[in-house]
Amino acid sequence: MKKYAPIDALKSPRFCGLTSFMRLPHLRTTTDVDAAIIGIPFDTATTFRVGSRFAPGEVRNMSRLLRPFNPAQGIEIFEHCSAVDYGDVDVVPGYIEKTYMKIVETMQPVFSAGVIPIAVGGDHSITLGELRAASGRYEKLALIQFDSHCDVWDDYFGEKYNHGTPFRRASEEGLVAPESSIQLGIRGPLYSAMDLDAARALGFEVIPEREMAKLSIADVVSRIRERVKDRPTFLTFDIDFVDPAYAPGTGTPEVGGPSSREALEIVRGLAGLNLVGFDLVEVIPQYDSGQITSLLAANILYEFLSLVAKNKESHNRDQR
Amino acid sequence: MKKYAPIDALKSPRFCGLTSFMRLPHLRTTTDVDAAIIGIPFDTATTFRVGSRFAPGEVRNMSRLLRPFNPAQGIEIFEHCSAVDYGDVDVVPGYIEKTYMKIVETMQPVFSAGVIPIAVGGDHSITLGELRAASGRYEKLALIQFDSHCDVWDDYFGEKYNHGTPFRRASEEGLVAPESSIQLGIRGPLYSAMDLDAARALGFEVIPEREMAKLSIADVVSRIRERVKDRPTFLTFDIDFVDPAYAPGTGTPEVGGPSSREALEIVRGLAGLNLVGFDLVEVIPQYDSGQITSLLAANILYEFLSLVAKNKESHNRDQR
Amino acid sequence: MKKYAPIDALKSPRFCGLTSFMRLPHLRTTTDVDAAIIGIPFDTATTFRVGSRFAPGEVRNMSRLLRPFNPAQGIEIFEHCSAVDYGDVDVVPGYIEKTYMKIVETMQPVFSAGVIPIAVGGDHSITLGELRAASGRYEKLALIQFDSHCDVWDDYFGEKYNHGTPFRRASEEGLVAPESSIQLGIRGPLYSAMDLDAARALGFEVIPEREMAKLSIADVVSRIRERVKDRPTFLTFDIDFVDPAYAPGTGTPEVGGPSSREALEIVRGLAGLNLVGFDLVEVIPQYDSGQITSLLAANILYEFLSLVAKNKESHNRDQR
Amino acid sequence: MKKYAPIDALKSPRFCGLTSFMRLPHLRTTTDVDAAIIGIPFDTATTFRVGSRFAPGEVRNMSRLLRPFNPAQGIEIFEHCSAVDYGDVDVVPGYIEKTYMKIVETMQPVFSAGVIPIAVGGDHSITLGELRAASGRYEKLALIQFDSHCDVWDDYFGEKYNHGTPFRRASEEGLVAPESSIQLGIRGPLYSAMDLDAARALGFEVIPEREMAKLSIADVVSRIRERVKDRPTFLTFDIDFVDPAYAPGTGTPEVGGPSSREALEIVRGLAGLNLVGFDLVEVIPQYDSGQITSLLAANILYEFLSLVAKNKESHNRDQR
Amino acid sequence: MKKYAPIDALKSPRFCGLTSFMRLPHLRTTTDVDAAIIGIPFDTATTFRVGSRFAPGEVRNMSRLLRPFNPAQGIEIFEHCSAVDYGDVDVVPGYIEKTYMKIVETMQPVFSAGVIPIAVGGDHSITLGELRAASGRYEKLALIQFDSHCDVWDDYFGEKYNHGTPFRRASEEGLVAPESSIQLGIRGPLYSAMDLDAARALGFEVIPEREMAKLSIADVVSRIRERVKDRPTFLTFDIDFVDPAYAPGTGTPEVGGPSSREALEIVRGLAGLNLVGFDLVEVIPQYDSGQITSLLAANILYEFLSLVAKNKESHNRDQR
Amino acid sequence: MKKYAPIDALKSPRFCGLTSFMRLPHLRTTTDVDAAIIGIPFDTATTFRVGSRFAPGEVRNMSRLLRPFNPAQGIEIFEHCSAVDYGDVDVVPGYIEKTYMKIVETMQPVFSAGVIPIAVGGDHSITLGELRAASGRYEKLALIQFDSHCDVWDDYFGEKYNHGTPFRRASEEGLVAPESSIQLGIRGPLYSAMDLDAARALGFEVIPEREMAKLSIADVVSRIRERVKDRPTFLTFDIDFVDPAYAPGTGTPEVGGPSSREALEIVRGLAGLNLVGFDLVEVIPQYDSGQITSLLAANILYEFLSLVAKNKESHNRDQR
Repeated sequence: MKKYAPIDALKSPRFCGLTSFMRLPHLRTTTDVDAAIIGIPFDTATTFRVGSRFAPGEVRNMSRLLRPFNPAQGIEIFEHCSAVDYGDVDVVPGYIEKTYMKIVETMQPVFSAGVIPIAVGGDHSITLGELRAASGRYEKLALIQFDSHCDVWDDYFGEKYNHGTPFRRASEEGLVAPESSIQLGIRGPLYSAMDLDAARALGFEVIPEREMAKLSIADVVSRIRERVKDRPTFLTFDIDFVDPAYAPGTGTPEVGGPSSREALEIVRGLAGLNLVGFDLVEVIPQYDSGQITSLLAANILYEFLSLVAKNKESHNRDQR
Repeated sequence: MKKYAPIDALKSPRFCGLTSFMRLPHLRTTTDVDAAIIGIPFDTATTFRVGSRFAPGEVRNMSRLLRPFNPAQGIEIFEHCSAVDYGDVDVVPGYIEKTYMKIVETMQPVFSAGVIPIAVGGDHSITLGELRAASGRYEKLALIQFDSHCDVWDDYFGEKYNHGTPFRRASEEGLVAPESSIQLGIRGPLYSAMDLDAARALGFEVIPEREMAKLSIADVVSRIRERVKDRPTFLTFDIDFVDPAYAPGTGTPEVGGPSSREALEIVRGLAGLNLVGFDLVEVIPQYDSGQITSLLAANILYEFLSLVAKNKESHNRDQR
Repeated sequence: MKKYAPIDALKSPRFCGLTSFMRLPHLRTTTDVDAAIIGIPFDTATTFRVGSRFAPGEVRNMSRLLRPFNPAQGIEIFEHCSAVDYGDVDVVPGYIEKTYMKIVETMQPVFSAGVIPIAVGGDHSITLGELRAASGRYEKLALIQFDSHCDVWDDYFGEKYNHGTPFRRASEEGLVAPESSIQLGIRGPLYSAMDLDAARALGFEVIPEREMAKLSIADVVSRIRERVKDRPTFLTFDIDFVDPAYAPGTGTPEVGGPSSREALEIVRGLAGLNLVGFDLVEVIPQYDSGQITSLLAANILYEFLSLVAKNKESHNRDQR
Repeated sequence: MKKYAPIDALKSPRFCGLTSFMRLPHLRTTTDVDAAIIGIPFDTATTFRVGSRFAPGEVRNMSRLLRPFNPAQGIEIFEHCSAVDYGDVDVVPGYIEKTYMKIVETMQPVFSAGVIPIAVGGDHSITLGELRAASGRYEKLALIQFDSHCDVWDDYFGEKYNHGTPFRRASEEGLVAPESSIQLGIRGPLYSAMDLDAARALGFEVIPEREMAKLSIADVVSRIRERVKDRPTFLTFDIDFVDPAYAPGTGTPEVGGPSSREALEIVRGLAGLNLVGFDLVEVIPQYDSGQITSLLAANILYEFLSLVAKNKESHNRDQR
Repeated sequence: MKKYAPIDALKSPRFCGLTSFMRLPHLRTTTDVDAAIIGIPFDTATTFRVGSRFAPGEVRNMSRLLRPFNPAQGIEIFEHCSAVDYGDVDVVPGYIEKTYMKIVETMQPVFSAGVIPIAVGGDHSITLGELRAASGRYEKLALIQFDSHCDVWDDYFGEKYNHGTPFRRASEEGLVAPESSIQLGIRGPLYSAMDLDAARALGFEVIPEREMAKLSIADVVSRIRERVKDRPTFLTFDIDFVDPAYAPGTGTPEVGGPSSREALEIVRGLAGLNLVGFDLVEVIPQYDSGQITSLLAANILYEFLSLVAKNKESHNRDQR
Repeated sequence: MKKYAPIDALKSPRFCGLTSFMRLPHLRTTTDVDAAIIGIPFDTATTFRVGSRFAPGEVRNMSRLLRPFNPAQGIEIFEHCSAVDYGDVDVVPGYIEKTYMKIVETMQPVFSAGVIPIAVGGDHSITLGELRAASGRYEKLALIQFDSHCDVWDDYFGEKYNHGTPFRRASEEGLVAPESSIQLGIRGPLYSAMDLDAARALGFEVIPEREMAKLSIADVVSRIRERVKDRPTFLTFDIDFVDPAYAPGTGTPEVGGPSSREALEIVRGLAGLNLVGFDLVEVIPQYDSGQITSLLAANILYEFLSLVAKNKESHNRDQR
């Protein structure tokens, strides 16, 4: 099997050439592909700051700094995982439900081919589209949600679809299994005392940031692993999970969050779970400073790719 | 009759207090009001850069530098024109048609009361909502459009409503009279040779920027005045009419445009026309530098207010 | 009794309308009011970077992200606390002592009415004005000062009043009781070895940042509570208390400080103290990045408001 | 013959997908290609501000706003001109002469195949590399240089190659014919009175900006046309030709220059000349504001492409 | 006589070393000196944006791009004019009148020694201090004021000294001769119809921007020359004279102004006048974009220096 | 012996005057000098973001906030250590090896005179030049390297000298003793599994960030002290050692690093080591936000100066 891997940065400087994720081949194929980076530049569903449509481009820009060996995981990613930059979903700016159709249209074949999509938004509304696309192949997925907000509102201004409601919708549509799902990092002012309970009432486990701050990384990882077990799992990471000092470029930042070091370590702890899809959302480059948010986002996607590679490596080892 | 006017800046520094337009009273009333500044922070309908939802706030910020006497027009504005900051339309982010309903709901009473609305967007899609609101009181309006784009596309990605289509829609809905309407400043690359003709085919007069550059300010003013005559007229000003050096903070800038001095002089030349509504659209503060775009926008709104005052002054003089 | 509370953000998007703190009613009244947000946009007294005159506006902007229920304190703020945005003090830019008179003139009636003022500066010189305003109602106040600098210089360039001297002046004028007062977070290079001793010589307890870093949050809170006991207390928070990574937008930043998470937790620990006034100073929006300093400042003001609400709640419970 | 043309922006929003110039196919081929956009991200040779290595990427970003019909020239570009984004030269950062070899290696096949390269730098040193690449196919080229500096220094700090010396070197190496060459827009302080004479002494015609300001666009165009006649010509455009208000993002800006409108009109006037190569240099995105410099640069490249299309159109018409 | 001149930029790159104006010797001497650059980093007297205390530093930064030969004037500056960077006046931030004393203390010896000071502010209030310093040597000076505001207010918030009042004060104190003085570029909204008349009532000639726009550069120059004749003259240049597109980094920008090209040409036209002092005020680097305002300011100071050199050259020629 | 010390900031505001480091005398002398701050504005050797040539200037700017007493070390720096700002090395932009010669030429006399240089880069390539300059006086130095990258690549694009290779070169040239040297903070993606081993294979001790995160500050300090013992030691600090939230303004940032508080504490722990030279590299002001990176850099240089003072103090005490 062919292996797709990045251009060699020791021959072509990293600032040269067109910008795909990690300088991977830009190909819309599922053949010989384990993981596909997909941009979903949709930000119509945001309720405050807007502009994540430019995030896939900026994250690709900063991903040029990434290199193929991940020492934290001890893995040569592209020896175990063939990956491509699949390009972007052609969203319909201004139209949420039309865009959901486009997401499904683009990503269903990816899921169906057993390729693991690693999407970069866009606002958090896109995850509903992705989960719909996954539903052709997977029954109710477990969900691991890194976020400072639960995103289980019923509606905003009388409308059902926006970046504050996707996980209620996903639950209603039977796309996720709340009883195997977990939200972590939740914090910040709420509309009412019932807000925290809303996610729990739907069946999600919630670890608020103040509780998480008292746990060790290992404990947080255990809580997640115990929750999702070996169920097919979708990991969604809202960049506002981390503190605004580490990720200023986002739409509804909440102060008092974890550092990027903590975030990365938790993600690294998830190797071995049955992860079938990933996304990273809510980066807004216009509010970034020194491109640190886009750089962090690129690194998180990189850890996702490493998790895929780790799973492939262990799978291949088992088969030998 | 009561006259609403700004706070005295010689007593309260201009950086003090909450920020209404020119520090006018913030009142949602049409009683004893000649002109009402209204924000329409809607940017869902944009096809490239996004973020004009924050423009009304930023334009209000820079409007604090404005003072009540306009020497270019020789008028003490608030001696002739009572004005309020009417606040914003409660738009529905992510939903264009719902937002049109909100615009109509908010602005129809303004038009009906004979108050002249001076709106600040938001993207150019909002003008369609405003024209619908005006239609209760006025038959087909003449339109004066300062813009680098005609905005008469039929659709984008299969959708009828966005910031590239409002004037085709307005024409189709019978809200404007193309035969009395004029677009000026049009420039930049097009999708095809037919694009320029499209506006003309609908009946609009079009003065492309390259033609305008050869005319004197007086000639441009004459062309406009001859076109709209004494018909009730709506003036819509897309900030991308001016060159990006003067207005970097916008969504689809086109290089090679007029200076702000030229723009202001043309607007000043329109005193005496039967102007019944105004808007200023497409300011995106996130892309501004040194707040010059918001400052220019505030000055253009100021000239609109001055035109209202000039008309009131001449009307009152006639009555005496 | 009437309760003033914010506009409902589920009906009017948070980016709509004029910007008062948390979208509270903008009213200059003390009737039926428990707490009043007051801007003091004065920055004449700064010795390095300048521009905090624009902080009240920017903090109000970011305060639109706040919601009425504080989960960290478990309180529906506006069920227990009626609050208004009182607007700004009309300062006299360029004139420190005249401005002190304006602060006293505006805030004395607030203190006298038993309303708790929550001020947002402005540079740290303003606190002297506030303490003078408080002195009509309260004898020597206890002071809790979050800051990286002691601000007890005798003079600068031969002048007694600027943002480095307010707490020596307050002590000399008998406005505060150093023996019940505490400064925490002090760090950074000093002019001489005597500088740290200066605050202690005046009677203040000082917890330098390096000492604080070795204490738990609970220990820091205990130290504060033991110091001020049940004395009427003024809490002043200089945003440079936190590390510049969390608050770049300030005038004399000191590296190596606490995170915003640590800062918020300490503030939250002060519920039940007899807090009669608050301020938050030294935010300079021009040096901010991604508006994170203004957002943090808004959150700190929010915790102040929550402390007032907690006290009211417990007071009301006791009365029942 | 196959025609390469951009993706249809009415189907795929302009912010979607990977970013090639104008969303042209990214292909390293000369077959069926009339013009090739080539990035040369080299900035080692700069003497003040640095960072134009990131210009090709940013110019590609802003080129997404361009559309295929150029109304100023009345041409559907891609009906007459097949164009590709050829990618970047793999430069060697830190090594000027090695990079010249890389430029020659990449571009000589392009010139040899009769494809017209349209390069985007990089600093002005790259033009020497391009002219060397051209010399395989063309004898001494005429040169049209838009610039605020003559760039004919002999050396800097004892070194022969940097962005202030390329045209002296080109002249010495016999790559250009000074007697058919012209520099326009020259202005700003000089090291000595001999500097202006230096270019003239080498045989170049020089139109300083102050002289140019007194000429009409038509006169400037005539001066250029008379100078280069029908000789094979290379057009090099240093973005600092225009005033810093229009192009702040550059390395050695000179105040008091022409507007972008003037610049574009002069370029448009050059249709019909025997233009065999183009470049646009010295854009530094880090110093840009509102991306206006990158947008202007993209538009200038667009006018170059239009000139190629005009020439092809007239050539094809003649052949019919 | 010794001649002070800049470091040779062909030996030491312009970004090397500490930053004096044009890399002139930093010396506080009047011996063998014709002109002295002096920073006056005072911004306490501003009524809106603040921060010009950092302007002398930033203008020095951008002055590193200047070179010793001025082709527009045809002069090798330092062959005729010995110049130093005299450093800054040690202002007293927060205290206007104390600062006036410091300005007088520092600059009186400069004027007395017959050295021509070229000051860089700071806000416009500083000019009053400079004129007081000059009064020891010169009787009522003629004043040439480039500005968008007349700055002849009587008071602000009850205070006599700030950046809106210096020329009324100068007139009252007999420091300038209004009958030989001229203000040009005045524009923008005013507090009342009497504002424009106020300067004229004091005896100043005023050329508003709208009148100036109709005159040729030569006509403007003639108007100035006729007004000041051979009287000892102080030239004060408020950077807000030019349009905000050319100078965004200022405190009270007014749209619709001249370009930097127009401004430079008028200044260049003043050679031969009896110019005994200069200043350039109101640059605020925090609001600049791409450092273009500081660069323009540096160039204007450069033209002032060139005027001194021209006068010296013609004086020396006459003596031979 | 004469003692050079900063200007008194209580007499001259810190924003006044030309900007030397900490406002120390700007003198190129080694007489009566213990430590010399030296700028090396060279950035030609960078492989991604570029622009550290402007770092010495910006770090000097922010160093104005530093004061002479370091409470963390309990030392009045300038009572024990006479220091000057030595100015910058006149580098040759674009030419690495020529610049090495310039560094040696400038710094060898400093080392030879027993003055301790504290350099501020520039990119990390400069350290090789400094170590060459030191070799005249010191045999193989111990090296303490704070960095997120090992910088022991063999070559890039076939070239031996750039900012990724200096410590392999230094080792090959016998300038450092790897067996007494230590690198700490290493993290981030690598090109291959062998990369971490490469530094160890050369003999360096390496503490990767993930290992360091598990150690206390005291343990890290011990590891360093045990490694270098009393050998003459060079301390090199790449600002990308700290997390990008604390230092966004750098060229190849790596997320997940230590805070500035941790970094400062480790540096403070090194008092008493035989430190003979220091540098701080890779600050790029163009990517900074709120100048926090330059401020942190200035503080690190300040801690270096404090270490020199501590050593002098203890040396003098011993001699008494």
